[in-house]
Amino acid sequence: MTTTTKRAAARRSAPAAPASPAPVIEEKEPRGARRKRETRARLLDAALRLMAEKGMEGVAINEITEAADVGFGSFYNHFESKEAIYATLVDNVFEEFANVLDRLAEGISDPAEVVAVSVRHTVLRARHNPVWGRFLIREGFSERALSRGLGQRLLRDIRNGIAAKRFVVADPFIGYLAVGGTVLSAIAAELNYVAPGASGAGMLKELGFNGEHFPERTAAMLLQILGLKRAEAEKIAARRLPVVEVADEAA
Amino acid sequence: MTTTTKRAAARRSAPAAPASPAPVIEEKEPRGARRKRETRARLLDAALRLMAEKGMEGVAINEITEAADVGFGSFYNHFESKEAIYATLVDNVFEEFANVLDRLAEGISDPAEVVAVSVRHTVLRARHNPVWGRFLIREGFSERALSRGLGQRLLRDIRNGIAAKRFVVADPFIGYLAVGGTVLSAIAAELNYVAPGASGAGMLKELGFNGEHFPERTAAMLLQILGLKRAEAEKIAARRLPVVEVADEAA
Repeated sequence: MTTTTKRAAARRSAPAAPASPAPVIEEKEPRGARRKRETRARLLDAALRLMAEKGMEGVAINEITEAADVGFGSFYNHFESKEAIYATLVDNVFEEFANVLDRLAEGISDPAEVVAVSVRHTVLRARHNPVWGRFLIREGFSERALSRGLGQRLLRDIRNGIAAKRFVVADPFIGYLAVGGTVLSAIAAELNYVAPGASGAGMLKELGFNGEHFPERTAAMLLQILGLKRAEAEKIAARRLPVVEVADEAA
Repeated sequence: MTTTTKRAAARRSAPAAPASPAPVIEEKEPRGARRKRETRARLLDAALRLMAEKGMEGVAINEITEAADVGFGSFYNHFESKEAIYATLVDNVFEEFANVLDRLAEGISDPAEVVAVSVRHTVLRARHNPVWGRFLIREGFSERALSRGLGQRLLRDIRNGIAAKRFVVADPFIGYLAVGGTVLSAIAAELNYVAPGASGAGMLKELGFNGEHFPERTAAMLLQILGLKRAEAEKIAARRLPVVEVADEAA
């Protein structure tokens, strides 16, 4: 399913489907729509790579246009500002993935399994797309995290579980911060220590730790933070992962 | 005690005490030692502010020298590279604070209280010095976090508590990630939502959350992640905070 979500992301950031919302384009003279879309996709691609590495503040517009092999001025045909391309990236990259998780969760009635499946997919996605993972870590601690994309869904999922009396969380705000912070810290650990060839793999071993079943172990921890007993948390975290159908994505 | 640790930080980054380790200076012609130290401190100060905002990768050496009002070339009289000034910052900013926490913990025998006091001081420090907080968030997810500074001490404190059978953590690696991730996420929340005048304060209220007793609530969550029951975790998290003596610092 990681391939699936990856493909979906590629589709979204290179909007070829007619159903995609029209990009806000400010230029007056019309050009070929396809070329326009391709340029926009190249700019978004370059911005994602650069901003995942350096953060929004650390990237200049001319770096983006150079990396995208696009003239500096044509940036403004597609985006008003650096902030605007960043906001579009956040929407493309996380809202899209949050939608994938929502579809995954549709067939699952247990709020605990929804959380477990979501975090396992998220860690796997970061494993297969480290740029995405780095970008998520950066964005996850922003002010927007509570009201948009993955953070907003996480808050909703926690609240659903509390309402269903499946989760026992005395302090939901801190519970949310603990679950969200653990996910981000697990993604960072995946990229730094756990992934094959990670530069910190030796350090992990030195400390007597290992990265086996890492997404499942992360999920089991989250469920315990949400009040489940260890044995049940581990059982739910080890269930078979549902697969997203590619056909669903095109709907 | 926040003022105290702040003062200690200022002293360290502007090394005026004769006991400070001599900076590695590569220039051959001797200049006034005081002027040299002042220039170095200005460079470190500027680099901290810029790198907290944009990350190490996002900052160019000439930005640092301009912000420090120092000639570009003289950067290299003090630091070999951007990586070198960053490493020095990490040492100054976090090793120093970790030492403060270690002194605080000296009089505390309960591993749970050590963790609670440490995280409360850390959140308060970020409240009083947001640049420091932002820098900690950036550095906290780096590969070095497991082996240096605050991350290393946190791992040690968790292991001490497990060895003393005070903490019950089935999976110490994930337990460390959860505790560390929660601390970083709490610092981000402090800066984004909880601090007076934080831009996300309205959002927090809208969601029905509040930031009262935030350091204590964060500490109570960490202790529960480490296996303590809620009532005991809350009691320990609410104990009186020890104060660091300024006199100790000069030793």
